[in-house]
Amino acid sequence: MEEDSKQQHAEEEEAAAAAHSNGEAVGADKEEEEGRDPESNSLHEPLLKRHRTLSASPLALVGAKVSHIESLDYEINENVLFKHDWRSRSKAQVLQYIFLKWSLACLVGLLTGIIATTINLAIENIAGYKLLAAVYFIEKERYITGFILFAGVNFVLTLMAALLCVFFAPTAAGPGIPEIKAYLNGVDTPNMFGASTLIVKIIGSIGAVSAGLDLGKEGPLVHIGACISSLLGQGGTDNYRLRWRWLRYFNNDRDRRDLITCGASAGVCAAFRAPVGGVLFSLEEVATWWRSALLWRTFFSTAMVVVVLRAFIEYCSTRNCGLFGQGGLIMFDVSNVTVKYKVMDAIPVIVIGVIGGLLGSLYNHLLHKVLRLYNLINQKGKMHKVLLALTVSLFTSVCLYGLPFLAKCTKCDPSSASVCPTNSRSGNFKQFNCPDGYYNDLATLLTTTNDDAVRNIFSTNHPSEYHTTSLLIFFVLYCILGLFTFGIAVPSGLFLPIILMGSAYGRLLGMAMGSYTSIDEGLYAVLGAASLMSGSMRMTVSLCVIFLELTNNLLLLPITMLVILIAKSVGDCINPSIYEIILELKGLPFLDAHPEPWMRNLTVGELAEAKPSLVTLCGIEKVSWIVDVLRNTTHNGFPVVDEEIVPPVGYAAGARELHGLILRAHLLQVLNKKWFLPEKRRRDEWEVRENFSWIDFAEREGKIEEVAVTREEMEMYVDLHPFTNTTPYTVVESMSVAKAMVLFRQVGLRHMLIVPKYQAAGASPVVGILTRQDLRAYNILMAFPHLEKSKGRGHGN
Amino acid sequence: MEEDSKQQHAEEEEAAAAAHSNGEAVGADKEEEEGRDPESNSLHEPLLKRHRTLSASPLALVGAKVSHIESLDYEINENVLFKHDWRSRSKAQVLQYIFLKWSLACLVGLLTGIIATTINLAIENIAGYKLLAAVYFIEKERYITGFILFAGVNFVLTLMAALLCVFFAPTAAGPGIPEIKAYLNGVDTPNMFGASTLIVKIIGSIGAVSAGLDLGKEGPLVHIGACISSLLGQGGTDNYRLRWRWLRYFNNDRDRRDLITCGASAGVCAAFRAPVGGVLFSLEEVATWWRSALLWRTFFSTAMVVVVLRAFIEYCSTRNCGLFGQGGLIMFDVSNVTVKYKVMDAIPVIVIGVIGGLLGSLYNHLLHKVLRLYNLINQKGKMHKVLLALTVSLFTSVCLYGLPFLAKCTKCDPSSASVCPTNSRSGNFKQFNCPDGYYNDLATLLTTTNDDAVRNIFSTNHPSEYHTTSLLIFFVLYCILGLFTFGIAVPSGLFLPIILMGSAYGRLLGMAMGSYTSIDEGLYAVLGAASLMSGSMRMTVSLCVIFLELTNNLLLLPITMLVILIAKSVGDCINPSIYEIILELKGLPFLDAHPEPWMRNLTVGELAEAKPSLVTLCGIEKVSWIVDVLRNTTHNGFPVVDEEIVPPVGYAAGARELHGLILRAHLLQVLNKKWFLPEKRRRDEWEVRENFSWIDFAEREGKIEEVAVTREEMEMYVDLHPFTNTTPYTVVESMSVAKAMVLFRQVGLRHMLIVPKYQAAGASPVVGILTRQDLRAYNILMAFPHLEKSKGRGHGN
Repeated sequence: MEEDSKQQHAEEEEAAAAAHSNGEAVGADKEEEEGRDPESNSLHEPLLKRHRTLSASPLALVGAKVSHIESLDYEINENVLFKHDWRSRSKAQVLQYIFLKWSLACLVGLLTGIIATTINLAIENIAGYKLLAAVYFIEKERYITGFILFAGVNFVLTLMAALLCVFFAPTAAGPGIPEIKAYLNGVDTPNMFGASTLIVKIIGSIGAVSAGLDLGKEGPLVHIGACISSLLGQGGTDNYRLRWRWLRYFNNDRDRRDLITCGASAGVCAAFRAPVGGVLFSLEEVATWWRSALLWRTFFSTAMVVVVLRAFIEYCSTRNCGLFGQGGLIMFDVSNVTVKYKVMDAIPVIVIGVIGGLLGSLYNHLLHKVLRLYNLINQKGKMHKVLLALTVSLFTSVCLYGLPFLAKCTKCDPSSASVCPTNSRSGNFKQFNCPDGYYNDLATLLTTTNDDAVRNIFSTNHPSEYHTTSLLIFFVLYCILGLFTFGIAVPSGLFLPIILMGSAYGRLLGMAMGSYTSIDEGLYAVLGAASLMSGSMRMTVSLCVIFLELTNNLLLLPITMLVILIAKSVGDCINPSIYEIILELKGLPFLDAHPEPWMRNLTVGELAEAKPSLVTLCGIEKVSWIVDVLRNTTHNGFPVVDEEIVPPVGYAAGARELHGLILRAHLLQVLNKKWFLPEKRRRDEWEVRENFSWIDFAEREGKIEEVAVTREEMEMYVDLHPFTNTTPYTVVESMSVAKAMVLFRQVGLRHMLIVPKYQAAGASPVVGILTRQDLRAYNILMAFPHLEKSKGRGHGN
Repeated sequence: MEEDSKQQHAEEEEAAAAAHSNGEAVGADKEEEEGRDPESNSLHEPLLKRHRTLSASPLALVGAKVSHIESLDYEINENVLFKHDWRSRSKAQVLQYIFLKWSLACLVGLLTGIIATTINLAIENIAGYKLLAAVYFIEKERYITGFILFAGVNFVLTLMAALLCVFFAPTAAGPGIPEIKAYLNGVDTPNMFGASTLIVKIIGSIGAVSAGLDLGKEGPLVHIGACISSLLGQGGTDNYRLRWRWLRYFNNDRDRRDLITCGASAGVCAAFRAPVGGVLFSLEEVATWWRSALLWRTFFSTAMVVVVLRAFIEYCSTRNCGLFGQGGLIMFDVSNVTVKYKVMDAIPVIVIGVIGGLLGSLYNHLLHKVLRLYNLINQKGKMHKVLLALTVSLFTSVCLYGLPFLAKCTKCDPSSASVCPTNSRSGNFKQFNCPDGYYNDLATLLTTTNDDAVRNIFSTNHPSEYHTTSLLIFFVLYCILGLFTFGIAVPSGLFLPIILMGSAYGRLLGMAMGSYTSIDEGLYAVLGAASLMSGSMRMTVSLCVIFLELTNNLLLLPITMLVILIAKSVGDCINPSIYEIILELKGLPFLDAHPEPWMRNLTVGELAEAKPSLVTLCGIEKVSWIVDVLRNTTHNGFPVVDEEIVPPVGYAAGARELHGLILRAHLLQVLNKKWFLPEKRRRDEWEVRENFSWIDFAEREGKIEEVAVTREEMEMYVDLHPFTNTTPYTVVESMSVAKAMVLFRQVGLRHMLIVPKYQAAGASPVVGILTRQDLRAYNILMAFPHLEKSKGRGHGN
């Protein structure tokens, strides 16, 4: 079954690749450039054996915009400068670094908490006054005026969100979680964590959620947390950056990665008020690398978020924040139900789990189709994107406003303690168009914010509060909206739509069970929501804890666990998780945790042969050759090999030495500073330290096109030794691709050198170089189609 | 501060090494054997440059018994047989494997749940009837009879537990968690997970806890979970093993590691009834490697435990289990308190955190001293061990029985709903020696089981239930008992003693705060317990979740988080966690997550030079040489190098090829099967497959002394190629030790080859081999004392 899903997987991938053929065309151009092999002096001839070349297409489709993607480098670049800087770091500097690390984690938590509260406040007030006004007209039976107001406000809000997303920050559309996942895996999507993205995400999120669209603010909050961390870590936006000396310690991919992990956790925590759930979400779903020190730091960030949230809730509880203020730290509290269940309750629980898994994977499948359709529409231009968003908004308005009129009015239960009927902002029994003493159950679910809808559908101790038909209408409507809302160009989260869908069928099932079960209907709704989340997103422990923290009912935990496990197992048999599907659609070169089984049949030596573009540099290299290489390849790292060395003791004459790996950015730095030598000689360490600092080398900017080198300088030399990372990770050419991939991913590399298994005179000490693209299954299969056949055979790990 | 603690660390390490000088002596002998260098034909000469040799002492002090410790191998051994077996695995076999994996995880959960309930049941009944009898005599004022009965029963129970531990399974003494931690790090402590250990642990735990000793059943339960998994995974004990065909897939270190992780989680879950906490405990504290697939499987195990526990609780709630049966799934429920706190409550919370950190590290420090003292006593012989345990038992009995007489009787509060006074098994207000209408608060805490003591001290909504003097007496007593009970030769956990100590000072602080604070005294006790746990064990997220699941009060979470973070930060500045201290005392070669800063100044090439004992084998090797090498070295892996090969295209003549790595166990298999060749030639793959199966090679048993080879056979040859792992992980000799260690630990290796950075004629393609012992900081510092100086300089990561 696992194999089947993989097969399907691959087909989808190909289809997706075909879909954004635009991108592929640009990719092919670049690739041709890359394919040129300077070693054989054929820099300007096209490559012959095309079919055997690894097609590394560093392209991604972000909001239908094709962009060049760089890998991140989590390896410590142990060159002379690093070693010196690191040796000379005083105790005070180390303490500075530690202090800053923790302060930033604290700041991330505080800011995320404040922004999350601001968003909540804005949404509750905008949507609240809108709904109150609409209800006012309905009470007066001025239905048309009510609708025009309701739909008009929604239209304007959506328009604002869509315009911002389309024209200012296209990366702010969608949830952002897949891109964060990719970032933590080592893929740097451009413009993903900038200031404009942050601002558009905040405003757009407020607009889209207030407009009553079927999307949540949870995904965007995670992205907001990540943006805040990224901006804090680099001391501001790209253009206006704080040049604080302390921050220089953070000018590396490792610390930035850690900070963004903290930010993502803080975001989840702020979204669900679930501190432990936030940490676990990052751990299980988002992060690729994890250390226990990081566990502790993310935990600190989420603790800060909770402190901020609590302070605001305390402050707002006295009606200082307009319509915002009801509810405590627990969002969807169901702790007032005593949970008592027997062995026989296992059957409905299992049924919910299985349905959740099936529906979840069906949802993933359909959403994939819809997103591909939307991609085609979105590619037509910016106006199409905006129009698509507005169409969805209008449709949503019509449904939310019109459908409650279909529902029958229900008589209020006088024995209940709740206010019934009500036309105020919150409350479980909305009067809508009903006479006094009656309530409209569909209006309770539809003419309210999404958060309140969840709260209302989870409502416990009120059996037969909802009619079956009302719930059915609600379920079908949210299935449709859930599929067609997610892909539009506004900030949108997936959590809440799925919770709404899941809770509807959960409650329906609970009602169908009737007196057979001793579990409350509201708890069935909770279980349904959990099962659909698990069936679509495939999280386990983190989901469990988030639900625990959302609902505050520890006794529900055992059955929640069971439901989640079943739903995930069922879903995994059918298709991959929703985030994986989106990652694939976006074409991000995500590196999976598990090597494919057929990767054991291939060695890295064979991979290197299929990619005959290894460019090595000498330890003391001519400027002209460096410029040539940088201009004619797109490689970001080059092995440095010393050719004519005095053979060390025990070695024969003519020995060649692998000195290490030098990065393109560092070569550019050297060229920019014109640090050339008239003759071939090695520089002393002090010479290097006088001219370069460790901080220069943390920068990644600069392009070879911007470097001006005169004709005389071209004939001069550069000593590359001081800038070379002398300790790159390597594999022997007989290593299987599966094991090489494990190493690459576990240690978090950008480049991995391949050394020969032979020891002989005159041979090169390096036979190839591997990058993320070379280790991706899809790319390997393009170069080695015969491996496809052996794909079915699995190790079953 | 970090550096200071490291400094102290190293001193303690040396002291510890001196303490078990017995062990070191044996180690030195072995080392001499190892130091011999067969390459230079000096197999029988002692080594000259002793001071530069890496002292790899594979010795451990387990229960004062010196034993030889092997490393585990988590690398996939990609030799011909593996590749064939793996290629020929059918889909059905893969499904078998997956099914078995999940069934075993389920079984581990079920069995752990059942055993945990049995232990609980036994303890509640034995300790319960003992206490009821003692109270009966006290009521009749027959104090001496009561004491004799109380102390006598305790004495007999302790004697039973100690005798079992000392004579049948010494590894069952102590908590077992450090050894599990070491196992998951790759250190196989002998006899740790056997059937005798399991049985002694169960019975011993029942005895020791019922005897009223100040120790918990929580640590032992984790060990029990691990034992169950280990036994299930290998299909029985070493002697009586189930030879089920399906189980052969589990005959490898990787799957066994995963299963033991499940077992440990199940154990924690059973101990605290905390399913999520159990998973997180394994993740944060115990496991070294972690995959998200494993997260899911451990989660399944803990879900099974909860199902079993719930079923038993349901069954026992109708008084079918004797005195066992009160209480639900939440152990120390404090959910009946509404938590309201203000900004000013931050001050007592911070104070608790700081005190927790200070006391926790003080406890660690003192416990370390006590354990070293106890080691000296225990080394004197088995009777000394038993006598030590009995002394502690007598002292405990005297204190528990005698001290309550010092307390003043308190008048019952008639407005309270609780029964007061009571002499029954449970209940918060024990009458003891008081008149009717009065209760003895110290007896409430002392003459009860440890679990009930925690429940009583956490008791909420009863301010001024305890006198300050009573709590002070309780606190001092449990500090003394907590220090002197842990090291005795019975199964003992650390969790409960620390919780008891912590809750006492927490409640004391709460009482001291008086009306300043709005937090309940019982919650102060909870916070105190959390802070001391964090200050001693240094867990964060898992501890938070365990406390959440223990107390079922989600609103307490934010302050619990704060307290835990502060206590851990304070503690980390002073000394390492208690588990690290025990690991060091036991001499287990645990590989830390973070390389020491000075490791960046050393290359693996220099390490290899300091350990001049590289033994390589040829691809087709003479039998006599193999036997010689196996007899005269203790190495477990040998690089295989092909000397006279036909040079491949592009290489000069005289090329040498690194073929891979062969394991000692596999060489022994070949010798045992006498699979020799009269002449030098390579075997075909079918020849291998006919004679060997993949299953043979999973075995690790056999010794070279048991192999009989005749004089003629000695002159024959073996083709080693088919048995060689052709894809070992390698590093270039210029790699820094820090980075090599990261690789070694992240990928989970046993051997790592060092390849030369030079490429020259006639040179060897491998220059060294690294094992776990070579990468341990202590061992490196012995060989390179000058690095000690640069130790202070840190990277501060």
